[in-house]
Amino acid sequence: MTEPSAPGALMAAEVAEQPAVFERVLAEGVGDVAAVAARVRRGSPRFVLMAARGTSDHAALYLKYLVEIALGLPCGLASPSTVTAYGARPDLHGVLWVAVSQSGGSPDLLESTLAAERAGALTLAVTNAPDSPLGRAAQLHLDIRAGAERAVAATKTYTATLLTLWLLVESWRGGDASAGRSLPELAQQVVDEPSVVEVADRFRFVDKVVVTGRGYSYPTAREAALKLMETSYLAAHAFSGADLLHGPLAMIDEDRPVVAVTPHGVAGTAMEPVLARLAERGADVTLVGDAAHGTAGIVVPVPRVAEELSPLLEIIPLQRLAHLMAVARHHDPDAPRGLSKVTRTL
Amino acid sequence: MTEPSAPGALMAAEVAEQPAVFERVLAEGVGDVAAVAARVRRGSPRFVLMAARGTSDHAALYLKYLVEIALGLPCGLASPSTVTAYGARPDLHGVLWVAVSQSGGSPDLLESTLAAERAGALTLAVTNAPDSPLGRAAQLHLDIRAGAERAVAATKTYTATLLTLWLLVESWRGGDASAGRSLPELAQQVVDEPSVVEVADRFRFVDKVVVTGRGYSYPTAREAALKLMETSYLAAHAFSGADLLHGPLAMIDEDRPVVAVTPHGVAGTAMEPVLARLAERGADVTLVGDAAHGTAGIVVPVPRVAEELSPLLEIIPLQRLAHLMAVARHHDPDAPRGLSKVTRTL
Repeated sequence: MTEPSAPGALMAAEVAEQPAVFERVLAEGVGDVAAVAARVRRGSPRFVLMAARGTSDHAALYLKYLVEIALGLPCGLASPSTVTAYGARPDLHGVLWVAVSQSGGSPDLLESTLAAERAGALTLAVTNAPDSPLGRAAQLHLDIRAGAERAVAATKTYTATLLTLWLLVESWRGGDASAGRSLPELAQQVVDEPSVVEVADRFRFVDKVVVTGRGYSYPTAREAALKLMETSYLAAHAFSGADLLHGPLAMIDEDRPVVAVTPHGVAGTAMEPVLARLAERGADVTLVGDAAHGTAGIVVPVPRVAEELSPLLEIIPLQRLAHLMAVARHHDPDAPRGLSKVTRTL
Repeated sequence: MTEPSAPGALMAAEVAEQPAVFERVLAEGVGDVAAVAARVRRGSPRFVLMAARGTSDHAALYLKYLVEIALGLPCGLASPSTVTAYGARPDLHGVLWVAVSQSGGSPDLLESTLAAERAGALTLAVTNAPDSPLGRAAQLHLDIRAGAERAVAATKTYTATLLTLWLLVESWRGGDASAGRSLPELAQQVVDEPSVVEVADRFRFVDKVVVTGRGYSYPTAREAALKLMETSYLAAHAFSGADLLHGPLAMIDEDRPVVAVTPHGVAGTAMEPVLARLAERGADVTLVGDAAHGTAGIVVPVPRVAEELSPLLEIIPLQRLAHLMAVARHHDPDAPRGLSKVTRTL
C-alpha cells in the first residue's frame, strides 16, 4: 500500500479498490439493471445513441461493441455539439439514448439528453451520482456504485461503468450474468500482477508511446492512452490495430514503444497481423493479455475470461502503469497540472 | 513550385492541385450526385451508418456532422471489426450505409459493405476508383474525381471527398450548391497564403503538438494531426475542444504548442472558452481560421465561407504545414518509413 499522503495515493487506492467495486456492483446493482433492461426491451429500440466525454467516452465505446455484437443493433456515438452548439434536432423516435458521465454534472450532456427526450428517444443516464442533474433528468438511471471517487484520474468509475453496461446488455439479452461472477477474484489477480512494475521501470525514459487494440479491446487502448497522458503527460497515442497500419505506423521508431492489448479471443487473434507488421519494423512491443498472439518483450498476463468481459480486467495493469510512471517521474497523479475533479462547463 | 524529384514534390503538387479538383468536382460531379441523392431520398433512411479508415474516417466524420445538423438524421461510424471479426449481423433495414475509401480496395470495408447490404441497408461507396472492388460492390457509387493520387499522404482525395459528400447532402436537402461556387477561388487563396511558412519555421524543433477544433472543424483537427504524424512522425494529438478540457489539458506545456481551428461561425465561437483556458495555462496557440475567436501567436487566415464548407479550405494550410515541416527535417513525405500506397489487408 502507498501511504495516504504519498503522490498518487488516492489513485493507487482506487485502482486497488476495483475488485471490491466489482463485488458490490454484482451484489447490489443487478436488481436495478434488470428493471432498466426490462423497460428498454419493452421499447424495442431500433438504434442506440450514446453521449459521453473523456473516460466515459471509452466506456460508451465498449457499449457500442456490446450492442452491435451481442444485441445486433446499430449503435453510434453522438456528437453533443451538433445539438448544443448547432441546434440540430434529429428525429429520435425508437432510439435508446445512453448518456455516460461519472459525475452526471456535464452541462452539454444534460442539455443533449433533454433534447434527445424531446426528440422522441428513451433516455438512460449511467452515472456514479444518482442525484446529479443528469441522473435526475434522464428517464432511466443506472448507478454504477463505485463509491466516492477522490482521485482526479478516473479508474474505478471506468470499470464500474463497464460492468454496469455489461450487466445491462446481459439482462437485455436474457442472460444470467454468471460469466461475471469470477470478476472480483480475477481483478484481484490483476491488481497483484508483478510484471507491470517491470514495464514501468523499462518505460522510465519513454515520453512517446502507442497503445493499440482491436474490437472489445480498442476502448482499453483509448482509455490507457488517456490515463498515460493525464497522469504522466506522455505523448500516448491510441490506434485500433487496423488504423495503425494506415498511416500512423510511420511514427513507430526506436523511441516509441508499443503496448498491444491482446485478449484471449477474437480481438487478440485480429491483432496478430498487426503484431507481425510491428515486428517487421523492429518495434518494441509489450503485450497485455494473452502471450500466444505475438512475440514481445514483456508480457503482462491477464486472466482468461469471456472476451466481452476482458476490458474490465485488462485496463487495470494499464491504470497501474500510468500511476507507476507518473510517480517515478515525480509527478503527482492526484494533482495533474491544469485539471480538477470538477467537470468543466461545456 | 517544388521540382518534381525533390522530397515531398508529389505531396506539394497534389496540395496545390486542390483548387482545380474542386473546379472539376463542381463541374462534372453534380449530375451523378443528384442521381444518387434522388435514390437515397426515395429510400428515406432513418439512420446513416458510415465505414472508413484513416483519412477517409475523417471525411466520414465530416459527413456525420452534416447529416446530423443539416438533415436532422442520426448518424454513426460503424466499427467494421464487429462485422468482419465478430460476425455481428445488425438489422440495417432503412439504414443508409456509406463506405468511404479513396482506393476502394480495403478488404474489411468491402466485406462489411456486402454484409450491410445483406442486412437490409442501402449501400453507397464514395471512392476515387469506380472500378475498385468497393466501387463495384456497393449499390450506389460516387466518384470523387480527384484524379490519380501519387503521393502517399492523402490530400486532394480528402478534400474531394468532403466536397462530394457536401454536394450529396446539399442535393438531398434540395439545395442548389451555390454556396460551393467560390470554393476553387478561395482554395487558391489558401494554397497561396504565406503565413503557413512562418508557422512551419517556428515549429522547426517541435516534436509534440496538439490540434483542436469543434463541430465541423473537429474532423479538420483529426486529419491535420494524422498528416503531421504520417509525414513528420510528430506526436500530434487531436482533441475536440470539449474533450481537451477533460484530461488531456494536463499535457499542454511549454514544449507542446496548440493549433486551434477556429472557423467563422458556430465552431469558432464554441472554441472561445477552450482558448481562454489554454491562455490561462500559458499555452502557445496558433489559430487557423478567424482571428476574432481568441488571442494567438500566428494566425493563418482562412477565407470566410458557409461554415459547413470551411473544412474544405482550412485543412489546406495544415496539409502544407505537414509538408513543410517534413521537408525541413529532411524527411520525404512522399516516402514515409513503413508505409506504401497499397491499402493493407485488414
